[in-house]
Amino acid sequence: MQQRVHFLTFSTPDLDAARAFYREGLGWHPLVDVAGEVIFFQVAPGTVLGLFDAEKFAQDAGMPSPAPVAGVTLSHNVDSAEEVSVAIDRLASLGAELLKPAQVGAFGGIFHGLVRDPNGIVWEVAHNPGWSIGDDGGVTFG
Amino acid sequence: MQQRVHFLTFSTPDLDAARAFYREGLGWHPLVDVAGEVIFFQVAPGTVLGLFDAEKFAQDAGMPSPAPVAGVTLSHNVDSAEEVSVAIDRLASLGAELLKPAQVGAFGGIFHGLVRDPNGIVWEVAHNPGWSIGDDGGVTFG
Repeated sequence: MQQRVHFLTFSTPDLDAARAFYREGLGWHPLVDVAGEVIFFQVAPGTVLGLFDAEKFAQDAGMPSPAPVAGVTLSHNVDSAEEVSVAIDRLASLGAELLKPAQVGAFGGIFHGLVRDPNGIVWEVAHNPGWSIGDDGGVTFG
Repeated sequence: MQQRVHFLTFSTPDLDAARAFYREGLGWHPLVDVAGEVIFFQVAPGTVLGLFDAEKFAQDAGMPSPAPVAGVTLSHNVDSAEEVSVAIDRLASLGAELLKPAQVGAFGGIFHGLVRDPNGIVWEVAHNPGWSIGDDGGVTFG
């Protein structure tokens, strides 16, 4: 199996809250938005974030009941510490729960903050001076 | 905040098991592999999968204790139903737990199977005839 993720899909108890947060709040544009079922956002070249109704998610995965999202973090990198603070404040103003205010990270030489979205997805916003993406999409750690 | 995921990071109780599964089993090449701390694999242009020691993950996210991975699925798309079956068998042979044998999916007109990796990450392998990636990385649903 190739080293490639095409979809990351989250169990989503409240799709309306997800729509309000990502579409109306952050202004993101969905590839697909089916009320009561799923919202897809493209979040990297060839890669899609899926917010899938929690009952259908469990059914599709052969699980007996929906499980809250846990043990995973999505990170969005920005170009400066200042932008971290602005983004964390913005996410909190849209109703995300503040988990960690913008600060120097314990690992990796980064400046970051973390919030939890209305459906339990944890987002980190980070400034990582040692990280870069080349023209070919290749990631480098400095 | 832009519509972009740069890292997806999982709480990983057993990094040695992760290394055996992804590096030795699947032959994936890490960007970084620090024993007892983290393994990074690039899984899309500009996007990295991080397997982060569970204790450090919790500490970094300001959580009181490690939480098992739940409520999320990573999907890898392949070009045929036959390839789904081959990949699911391969993953199971490497020690993944079979959650759903390769079969027609309930949603989206796909053929898929699901497994759980040694640290709780659920992978779907899918053939989705209505999905494609353009030369610019743009995803289309048919």
